[in-house]
Amino acid sequence: MTEPGGAFMTDNHFAKPQSRRDVLDPHLGRYAARTAGMTASEIRALFAVASRPEVVSLAGGMPDLAALPLRTLSEQVAQIVAEDGLTALQYASAHGLPLLRDQICDVMALEGIRAHPDDVVVTVGSQMGLDLVTRLFCDPGDVVMAEGPSYVGALGSFAAYQAQVVHVAMDGHGLVPEELRAALRRARDTGRRVKLLYTIPNFHNPAGVTLAVERREEILEICRTFGVLVAEDNPYGLLGFDGQTYPALRSLDPDNVVYLGSFSKTFASGLRVGWVLAPHAVREKLVLATESATLCPPTLNQMIVSRYLATHDWKGQIKAFQQSYRERRDAMLSALERYLPPGCTWTTPDGGFYVWVTVPEGVDTKAMLPRAVAARVAYASGTGFRTDGLGHRQMRLSYCYPPPERIHEGVRRLAGVLRAEMDLAHGHGRYPGVLGTPVAL
Amino acid sequence: MTEPGGAFMTDNHFAKPQSRRDVLDPHLGRYAARTAGMTASEIRALFAVASRPEVVSLAGGMPDLAALPLRTLSEQVAQIVAEDGLTALQYASAHGLPLLRDQICDVMALEGIRAHPDDVVVTVGSQMGLDLVTRLFCDPGDVVMAEGPSYVGALGSFAAYQAQVVHVAMDGHGLVPEELRAALRRARDTGRRVKLLYTIPNFHNPAGVTLAVERREEILEICRTFGVLVAEDNPYGLLGFDGQTYPALRSLDPDNVVYLGSFSKTFASGLRVGWVLAPHAVREKLVLATESATLCPPTLNQMIVSRYLATHDWKGQIKAFQQSYRERRDAMLSALERYLPPGCTWTTPDGGFYVWVTVPEGVDTKAMLPRAVAARVAYASGTGFRTDGLGHRQMRLSYCYPPPERIHEGVRRLAGVLRAEMDLAHGHGRYPGVLGTPVAL
Repeated sequence: MTEPGGAFMTDNHFAKPQSRRDVLDPHLGRYAARTAGMTASEIRALFAVASRPEVVSLAGGMPDLAALPLRTLSEQVAQIVAEDGLTALQYASAHGLPLLRDQICDVMALEGIRAHPDDVVVTVGSQMGLDLVTRLFCDPGDVVMAEGPSYVGALGSFAAYQAQVVHVAMDGHGLVPEELRAALRRARDTGRRVKLLYTIPNFHNPAGVTLAVERREEILEICRTFGVLVAEDNPYGLLGFDGQTYPALRSLDPDNVVYLGSFSKTFASGLRVGWVLAPHAVREKLVLATESATLCPPTLNQMIVSRYLATHDWKGQIKAFQQSYRERRDAMLSALERYLPPGCTWTTPDGGFYVWVTVPEGVDTKAMLPRAVAARVAYASGTGFRTDGLGHRQMRLSYCYPPPERIHEGVRRLAGVLRAEMDLAHGHGRYPGVLGTPVAL
Repeated sequence: MTEPGGAFMTDNHFAKPQSRRDVLDPHLGRYAARTAGMTASEIRALFAVASRPEVVSLAGGMPDLAALPLRTLSEQVAQIVAEDGLTALQYASAHGLPLLRDQICDVMALEGIRAHPDDVVVTVGSQMGLDLVTRLFCDPGDVVMAEGPSYVGALGSFAAYQAQVVHVAMDGHGLVPEELRAALRRARDTGRRVKLLYTIPNFHNPAGVTLAVERREEILEICRTFGVLVAEDNPYGLLGFDGQTYPALRSLDPDNVVYLGSFSKTFASGLRVGWVLAPHAVREKLVLATESATLCPPTLNQMIVSRYLATHDWKGQIKAFQQSYRERRDAMLSALERYLPPGCTWTTPDGGFYVWVTVPEGVDTKAMLPRAVAARVAYASGTGFRTDGLGHRQMRLSYCYPPPERIHEGVRRLAGVLRAEMDLAHGHGRYPGVLGTPVAL
């Protein structure tokens, strides 16, 4: 079993060099223009190595499922197939099962969203929601505004439809409203067509920060003013470590927000069940787009999620996840504090899966990665989370999957690699020491 | 539970009129160009009515799952979740599980295909394969050659990427090679870029015919000559009523065929497990495209299919399906013979799910559909299977889902509606009687 998305996909969509294989590809002249960017990066070559058991992977975004009640789930799934198999194994509507769409509204209510089940479209993970929203809205050359850094899977979808990403700066309180306004003005002044603001307001991937509540209305107002639709991606919203939630952007502006939700982090990623909540007219088009993408999401999987929500204490289960991730976050922060050399800084997440680390000037996280893997630790280089070539001084460390003692060991190894890198840079006059100006998030 | 794809999706992607809702859609100016065609047709309004139990639906393409060993499957699924749940419920690779890809090669071997598991990519149903192959190859305006009529879900994918479909005539032996050559010449002479030949060689949907074996090499050669890649869609190939199979196009020309396979018709459609077998370089790009579409196909579903193939007599199960569909095909043909008015003609399928019926001149199957539904029978109008506005004198009748006695009753009702329609047309001078020139398939 290899690692998914978040991990080493990082640079796939943006790597420049043509591999030898491409040169030999007899179909080379036949691909669509959009396919040109889809070349596998050299990072993929590290993939097999990085998933070896001796490597501590702080790279992936795999949730820790150990707390799931497998015995109960096993019985429920058996019951679904035995008693309702002719439905569970059959095609269903592209829209998604009505009962599940009802239940999804209950889940979203926890973050202040009032929605009608008709406006929910079930998708094959929220990645598919992202893909289809981009399909509906983005012509080649259209601009999507996104936090800088942003979720690599979203950048992949934008690239697949030849949309251009403009990164907007964040700080410790998330997306900076004035930066967004300025970016939208620049786009308008240069005649670029901005279609979406793509944002992860809560426990950001990869930055680990949360959009301040007092910024939310302002950001929504800016988007309305500039006529830009908001795509709110919220896979981690219920994973606040103190159980705290924040008002979803969708709850504050139902008409101008397309909301993307997922059971991957609060239940089971391998079922690939996510959803989109969209304004009515958009929802109708999403259903049509779903039909041409997959006919319908898997029926059995929807029934499993539905049964789980109906019969299990899923809120209690989410509390257990919060507790587990909190312990790992604590392990990560204390290890960073203990081991990382001076000049490194990092964010302090209140929920979710990730810490965003900035390393001293002179260290290049992308170039360093093979040496880290050789030292048996893996991370995701910051460059993968941007389309503008920046991010060489950043990396994403995930604490979601490895247990605390492995996190500790991983950070210890990483610190060793970093020190060696800094020594090397220093020797070459590349490393100005801890006095280098701290870079913005 | 509503019906999927094949049924009333029919005209969705091609309907012209803007509904009231579209006019009121505040996002109207924001959609991508490709989204313009995605308006729901009036046929969708019939959907709810047509899925009422009193209506005999000969419209959908739902497989009959009654023969599946639900008890055994239930136990197997329970075991997977209980013993291997941390894998089954977790993300996996975008490429698909290695064991399943191995087994898929065994399945394909039944139709003469020798393939390496590395070149198999698991997809969320073969619809997703179709969508991604189109994504990789088709720029807006590129031409896809397809049989006329062709599978409505494929036409939907082509439309989603703004590819233009050129229909190539079939006869009782499938696609006509000379017609294909002529169409490719015309395209070349008018400077159009043809990217794919999309074809369903075996037990065609919707036409119910099979491409003659002696035409296969010729068609492949024509495609090589014109530099056109072949997309071979083969969901029904193992459902020949005498257990007969035909050599897959892929087996005859591995380098110029992308092969689409599915477990939806030979096992369970609701699991949404299909695959693409592609030349090596194309396969690499498909994996990248899968990542941006859904991250990975559902893990549990892949394990269910894999366990089923490993432990169950799946070939025996396919024989049971063949037997069941053969009985239904027989019921359909004898009912057509008995009830349909003079002037109607139809194909005689040797496998698969569908009969293609041509009605006398003056009858319009699209216009007639609401009246058929009022008479408690539904079918798919021929217009949905073409993009050129033709097909008004054709309809697809599915015998896959209703039991024989329902098929019988459905055709009886349909015949009544047809007679009334012909009387009406005759009264208006629209119906020239049974002497009207028979139209080509």
